[in-house]
Amino acid sequence: MYAIGLDFGSTAIRALIVDLAGEREVASASTDYPCGTRGVCLKEDDPLLARQNPDAYIAAMTCSIRTAVEEAKKTDPAFAAEKVAGIGVDATSATIIPVTQKMIPLSRLGPFKDNLNAFAWMWKDHTALAEADEITLLAEKEHPEYLSRCGGSYSAEWFWSKVLHALRCDRKVFDASFAWVELCDFIPAVLAGLEDYSQIRCSAGAAGHKAMYAEDWGGLPDEKFLSALDPALVPLRGRLYKKAYASSETAGTLSPEWAGKLGLQAGTPLAVGMIDAHAGAAGSGAGPGKMVSIIGTSTCDITVAKFSGDVPEIKGISGIAQHSVLPGYYGIEGGHAAVGDAFFWQASSVGGVTDFARLEQEAARLTPSPDSVIAIDWLNGNRNPYADEKLKGIMVNLTLHTTLAEMYRAWLEATAFGIRQVTDILAAAGFEISELICAGGIPEKSPLLMQIYADVLDKKMLLPASRETCALGAALCGAAAGKAVSSVEEAQKKLCKFRELFCTPDPARKEIYDLLYSKYCLIGKEFAKGSLAKIMHS
Amino acid sequence: MYAIGLDFGSTAIRALIVDLAGEREVASASTDYPCGTRGVCLKEDDPLLARQNPDAYIAAMTCSIRTAVEEAKKTDPAFAAEKVAGIGVDATSATIIPVTQKMIPLSRLGPFKDNLNAFAWMWKDHTALAEADEITLLAEKEHPEYLSRCGGSYSAEWFWSKVLHALRCDRKVFDASFAWVELCDFIPAVLAGLEDYSQIRCSAGAAGHKAMYAEDWGGLPDEKFLSALDPALVPLRGRLYKKAYASSETAGTLSPEWAGKLGLQAGTPLAVGMIDAHAGAAGSGAGPGKMVSIIGTSTCDITVAKFSGDVPEIKGISGIAQHSVLPGYYGIEGGHAAVGDAFFWQASSVGGVTDFARLEQEAARLTPSPDSVIAIDWLNGNRNPYADEKLKGIMVNLTLHTTLAEMYRAWLEATAFGIRQVTDILAAAGFEISELICAGGIPEKSPLLMQIYADVLDKKMLLPASRETCALGAALCGAAAGKAVSSVEEAQKKLCKFRELFCTPDPARKEIYDLLYSKYCLIGKEFAKGSLAKIMHS
Repeated sequence: MYAIGLDFGSTAIRALIVDLAGEREVASASTDYPCGTRGVCLKEDDPLLARQNPDAYIAAMTCSIRTAVEEAKKTDPAFAAEKVAGIGVDATSATIIPVTQKMIPLSRLGPFKDNLNAFAWMWKDHTALAEADEITLLAEKEHPEYLSRCGGSYSAEWFWSKVLHALRCDRKVFDASFAWVELCDFIPAVLAGLEDYSQIRCSAGAAGHKAMYAEDWGGLPDEKFLSALDPALVPLRGRLYKKAYASSETAGTLSPEWAGKLGLQAGTPLAVGMIDAHAGAAGSGAGPGKMVSIIGTSTCDITVAKFSGDVPEIKGISGIAQHSVLPGYYGIEGGHAAVGDAFFWQASSVGGVTDFARLEQEAARLTPSPDSVIAIDWLNGNRNPYADEKLKGIMVNLTLHTTLAEMYRAWLEATAFGIRQVTDILAAAGFEISELICAGGIPEKSPLLMQIYADVLDKKMLLPASRETCALGAALCGAAAGKAVSSVEEAQKKLCKFRELFCTPDPARKEIYDLLYSKYCLIGKEFAKGSLAKIMHS
Repeated sequence: MYAIGLDFGSTAIRALIVDLAGEREVASASTDYPCGTRGVCLKEDDPLLARQNPDAYIAAMTCSIRTAVEEAKKTDPAFAAEKVAGIGVDATSATIIPVTQKMIPLSRLGPFKDNLNAFAWMWKDHTALAEADEITLLAEKEHPEYLSRCGGSYSAEWFWSKVLHALRCDRKVFDASFAWVELCDFIPAVLAGLEDYSQIRCSAGAAGHKAMYAEDWGGLPDEKFLSALDPALVPLRGRLYKKAYASSETAGTLSPEWAGKLGLQAGTPLAVGMIDAHAGAAGSGAGPGKMVSIIGTSTCDITVAKFSGDVPEIKGISGIAQHSVLPGYYGIEGGHAAVGDAFFWQASSVGGVTDFARLEQEAARLTPSPDSVIAIDWLNGNRNPYADEKLKGIMVNLTLHTTLAEMYRAWLEATAFGIRQVTDILAAAGFEISELICAGGIPEKSPLLMQIYADVLDKKMLLPASRETCALGAALCGAAAGKAVSSVEEAQKKLCKFRELFCTPDPARKEIYDLLYSKYCLIGKEFAKGSLAKIMHS
């Protein structure tokens, strides 16, 4: 049997076909979204706005699936459409689309055709900054538990901020929309040919992280809370989903119409959608005690845990939601908002370097010492443990002899210290991490970064063999939803392969890094909450 | 009448001839020292060592004076050797020379001809680091008052550190030397043809700053103290000067032999020597309420005050010595160890910039805000107010959008904040500064720096018109010693001219800078003495 994973990224959608028996990836294809600038519709006078045309997702998806199916047929004679056990979907989140009751995107209707507010509001759309602050303040006062699983502050990127902003800035769009749907929920609904919003089965991961949904407080935020923000949100709440689902369940089956368009078989099970980072974590092998760090321009740390009884509050960790990564587990998520971005900023933006390889070599020749430059990696705020966007980057221990390579290395080290803060917090809460799975684009490019992580973190380090871990995670859920495997974990055992990184910690460096890490934590504490808190908060 | 100033810098000696009646500079000549690498003798295997050949000073001085005298004759028909009222001398300090009782430099004697330990130990020679620590520790325990006027720690660059190191590393040199003489005391002795050390009249400024000399504790450090360092220092103390003199007094008169060599008149009064920075301050117009900041690779802040009764301890100010800048006043000195060096480090060493003018333009276009990058200018330790060489530079408020120009401007601002700390300390001690005289090489090159200083300091700002303020300060003392004027201050009125800088503070920027300055002070306090003191001290 086979499974298909669809990964809707920021600029393109990838389709991946995996062979469950052969335990391998068979075919893959990616298509850029045919809209806007590199797939994103922008507005010249509003740099915060980022939208996408829902029909561009559908057009690009069609192309990717058809191409992948053709390729699979060519490279694997055993492949056939009827052997596809299931299709899984992941997407950026919260990327949300206003739709009618019949699941038609508003942007397809005449009066809204050129109205960007009727398009998909992309995850990185930041037009709702004011509404995010308002929601955070209200929740702090009325329902602190709503913030307890999203790190203490609600983001402008998330569901209620965006919907509240739409209500205020474009009432016609708000009134014409029956519901707002996550991209990862919209796609399975489209492929299943659903003709009424009531049939939708929404992702527990996306709901829990972005829409303040939790079973233990009765689903979405209560009416009184929403009414205090704006009474118009109350009827919307009444129309929205009441229950959210794990991605090992089905959201429907492939409609005959779409089966025809894609060269697949009608009735193929469609998994409930998931957030792209969570799919990437599942596809990278996340499990209990195994943390996946997806290391790119920023880093997302993801692991899972089973809780007996109440959901514990893990102070300083930004995202906890049931079923989000692996069905049956709570997904736990930490984040670091400037990683590759920080390296690039230091080397290129303010360092003027074009030859990165040489800078990396120079940095690799350095030996850390108690007097080494210490960087605090808050160039884009801090997610863990302080969840404070006002915090900014710091460099300490500079001298006239400090070189650019020393400063560059300090940022690499700072991101290792940031991950260590997450694993230390998890360990203190009873969730010891024994394996670090380094995913994302940077680990393979920077052996130095991996050596630093080994020295700082002192853990077994693995590199996922797949280059398409998000699409792979979606495919694993497709396989589970299609009952070709008993669970996503069984699918992981078949398809998640690793390369072990042979960078065992150096005892001398580890000792120095223990000292530098304690200094990193102390500096951070004083600037975030201590004697220097007013430096960045006044 | 005329006066001559001789300024012995690190690599060259300048002779300046001024016309007291005409109130102008008449002639000037500079000659590089004919020894070592750019005037400095180095040792390949010891980067801390920096020595100079005493005979190179004499050869270069002879050339400079003769050239200046020739030029004066050409450009001013009224000039004549017999109209030179006096000669003043300033030099780098502590640059000290081991001499015999007959004032012969040891390096001129056969057995020591090629021995660098018998040469002049240049101010920036750092071979005595261990001895400096030892002296500081002992003084803290036995005589804290010895440290009270040099900022709380004794430097490796100063008299007793070097002499103690010489005693330990080259006993033959130590035993052969009758005394060790400051360069600024050696030159007048040479020109006067003194043939015995007992005839020398040493500089109060150099003695007070560098040799722990003060009248109120009985001159040089006491025998018990020196004996605890090494008993061999006790007989040396017995041979050294008992009294130090102001630079308006005479150290002797020009000998017939030197008068002949130089084309001057025998019997011309020679002023007691002074430290180059103090001469620069006098030549720049330092006076009560008027602070001279000599702004170059580092900055020296110098002002003067009259004390009634005991010398007050001004906590956080590194140097206080009687007569050092103006006879009859206490000279007060603050310092900032990285200024031009910090700008160059940020722009070039780690910023990769070659077009400084363009970077300065970009920085000039920026507007300070409460979120601006804040730099703490301790790239080479801190002199005031913490006198702590272990402190290192800090940058705060960095983001992914921070530009190199913002970082560059932050260092300019940091040096303004550093000077403001000095003027605030002085004001709190009762010495209000109303005028800032900006000397040194950088003020003329950077209008941006001057505007920032005006905004941060909110004081009347003046630029000295003379390009040779050190030699001018020495000439002023030459005139006073020769009784051509009643005091150095009267000579200042004749010869110190200014260009007023028209950079009145901008009220909006001043308000922001008041806020950023308070943050600068707070960050500094926490890292120097507060909750983050262990970051740079462990």
